[in-house]
Amino acid sequence: MVNVAVMGYGTVGSGVVKVILDNNDIVSKNAGDKVNLKYVLDIRDFPGDPAEKVITHDFNDILNDPEVDIVVETMGGTGAAYKFTKAALEAGKSVCTSNKELVAAYGLELLQTAKEHNANYLFEASCGGGIPIIRPLMTSITGDEILEITGIVNGTTNYILTQMGECGMDFDEALKGAQANGFAELHPEADIEGYDPCRKIAILSEIAYGKAVDYNDIYTEGITKITADDIKYAKSLGAAIKLLASSVKTDKGYEIMVAPYLVGPESPLYSVNGVFNAVFVKGDMLGDSMFYGSGAGSLPTASAVVGDVVDLAKHLGTNIMKIWDEEKLPLVPHDEAVNCFFIRVNEADKEKAAAAFAGAKEVKAVVDGEAAFITGPMKECEFAAKVNEVPVISCIRSRLA
Amino acid sequence: MVNVAVMGYGTVGSGVVKVILDNNDIVSKNAGDKVNLKYVLDIRDFPGDPAEKVITHDFNDILNDPEVDIVVETMGGTGAAYKFTKAALEAGKSVCTSNKELVAAYGLELLQTAKEHNANYLFEASCGGGIPIIRPLMTSITGDEILEITGIVNGTTNYILTQMGECGMDFDEALKGAQANGFAELHPEADIEGYDPCRKIAILSEIAYGKAVDYNDIYTEGITKITADDIKYAKSLGAAIKLLASSVKTDKGYEIMVAPYLVGPESPLYSVNGVFNAVFVKGDMLGDSMFYGSGAGSLPTASAVVGDVVDLAKHLGTNIMKIWDEEKLPLVPHDEAVNCFFIRVNEADKEKAAAAFAGAKEVKAVVDGEAAFITGPMKECEFAAKVNEVPVISCIRSRLA
Repeated sequence: MVNVAVMGYGTVGSGVVKVILDNNDIVSKNAGDKVNLKYVLDIRDFPGDPAEKVITHDFNDILNDPEVDIVVETMGGTGAAYKFTKAALEAGKSVCTSNKELVAAYGLELLQTAKEHNANYLFEASCGGGIPIIRPLMTSITGDEILEITGIVNGTTNYILTQMGECGMDFDEALKGAQANGFAELHPEADIEGYDPCRKIAILSEIAYGKAVDYNDIYTEGITKITADDIKYAKSLGAAIKLLASSVKTDKGYEIMVAPYLVGPESPLYSVNGVFNAVFVKGDMLGDSMFYGSGAGSLPTASAVVGDVVDLAKHLGTNIMKIWDEEKLPLVPHDEAVNCFFIRVNEADKEKAAAAFAGAKEVKAVVDGEAAFITGPMKECEFAAKVNEVPVISCIRSRLA
Repeated sequence: MVNVAVMGYGTVGSGVVKVILDNNDIVSKNAGDKVNLKYVLDIRDFPGDPAEKVITHDFNDILNDPEVDIVVETMGGTGAAYKFTKAALEAGKSVCTSNKELVAAYGLELLQTAKEHNANYLFEASCGGGIPIIRPLMTSITGDEILEITGIVNGTTNYILTQMGECGMDFDEALKGAQANGFAELHPEADIEGYDPCRKIAILSEIAYGKAVDYNDIYTEGITKITADDIKYAKSLGAAIKLLASSVKTDKGYEIMVAPYLVGPESPLYSVNGVFNAVFVKGDMLGDSMFYGSGAGSLPTASAVVGDVVDLAKHLGTNIMKIWDEEKLPLVPHDEAVNCFFIRVNEADKEKAAAAFAGAKEVKAVVDGEAAFITGPMKECEFAAKVNEVPVISCIRSRLA
């Protein structure tokens, strides 16, 4: 018997309990041993709930119980979650989590702690919800040099952008709708400002490239400035606007960035809509691949967490995780990163813009009194300098062919 | 040092050698030990080739060399490939392969042989080329009951159907083009008649559901009857025609089938074009997911094979594969399987068709003198009986919403 404790009985934690209880035969068969839910840690009580009898309010019940082999951390944050995870690993218990803040901030340290104690720290659910992506990067795409990872890894912003595209709404209206439908939080900054995908691309880059990435070093732009008119232009170009978290190997280092982009139908990311997520991976041998699925939600995320529980159960007492180096991944400074840009200007500034962005391709204006262009590849600092010369109505990075 | 022998120096085998040699640092780091190419078995010589010095013409050189830990079988077929694989496993060497014929025909036996000798038999590259799908099913989606697997798992037919869609060609012309471009073989029956995807969906079903599937029991229909007019109708319906290899859990057992279907843009499979492959997986907790990438080609397939080599190197002396039961998976007899059907009839037969397929929805005819319908869900035997009453010009199964 393998005993599991779940810490935090919120959206994901309750999903984990449901998967372990409802699919116990499947989970136990795959784990090679009976998987038993022994504790659920929460400050609340849950009378009448399936977890009622195993609820504890004291982490020490879990820590000091030698029968607990696996701890699931679905508390979120970097306070108690860090303290409890660290203590559990030091006690030789394996831990898995859906907590990307914690992994992005303390992942390397916790992986090392796990290794020192012959335990494991797994976090498949921290990126892309239910989508298997971390384990495939660790155990399948192992003959390739990875050249690029680009993800739509935030369901809230993808839902908002999809709604804007389908209904012609402005951002504020779409955000309110997302909040009303439970797809955005009351305090949605972590999503709409891109902080959440920033942490996820940091984690994915560390795994893919084997060196440390500080998410504070990643240029991050959210979707709050995208307007209904921008979407109109995107459609007229046969494109969609997507918040991409991307990490690309270049001659000068790695360009990691979170920002909205125009994406065309030749990209498999173009048709990733609503709350779905997808991670595009390019290997030097494999070529293009993509992993698609539910990026959030209680049960899909729990599915990934329980996948980790099964893996932990199969590897009790053996360390299996690839650990990245403490050395920092060499990043291209944001100013030096190269992008193409879609820009809208007032018709009066058309000549000026054409001169400033020499070689830019003019595209059809779909708002009266405007002109629009897509520039060739240019450095971010060059673009910023030009925008000082020519006032632009809006600009969005472009991956259109 | 881990010593590897590659058997068969054709398209995939030469790719495997290239990945092992060109990415040796990455491969060795991921394997945790230096990966050394010790032999390449082929009947030919390759003067001036990177493999020249390790070529052998005698399988016994590999079999009798105790230093060879891992054997890569990229010979194809079920003759010598079977004999050599079996002998290597019996000698305690681990084997990996891209050979779906062999896995579909002898997979269970070879997995058991591997287990008896503390070795492993891996075949990630047998389904979906470079796409990681078998390992994710084995090691990631382990908390779910899998409810459906539907794949576009044959690049040749997907390329032909994509060409027909883009250029309005008829099947014969598109096939000739595919042959000229190297995307179809001179004897293309295994692809265009669906035999290849049939073997792949058998393997994927065995892994997902844990019971044996004889590919001879799977109803298999190719794409040879699809015409330019069918494609015209598909487009008018906003749909694409895709050769789907599908395996769906129903109340009455598993419906496994290979056949062309109308697929709409609400399906993530709709935008899988050209030689790309994708496998859609639905779990009871995970919901919808999809794995997308290069389904064929020397290097993408080799990437998957070398992923297996790394996994084998990490697990020498330990059996890691989940083995399915000898007991057969209960299949729904083809006659009892339920589908919707798109049908074209002569305008003169319109009333008759409307009466026979009561409840079918009429759709716009795009060929003069015709009428067209999409039926509701009906049993294959019922549909076959109706087609005896009403002569149809063509019929294609439909997954349109």
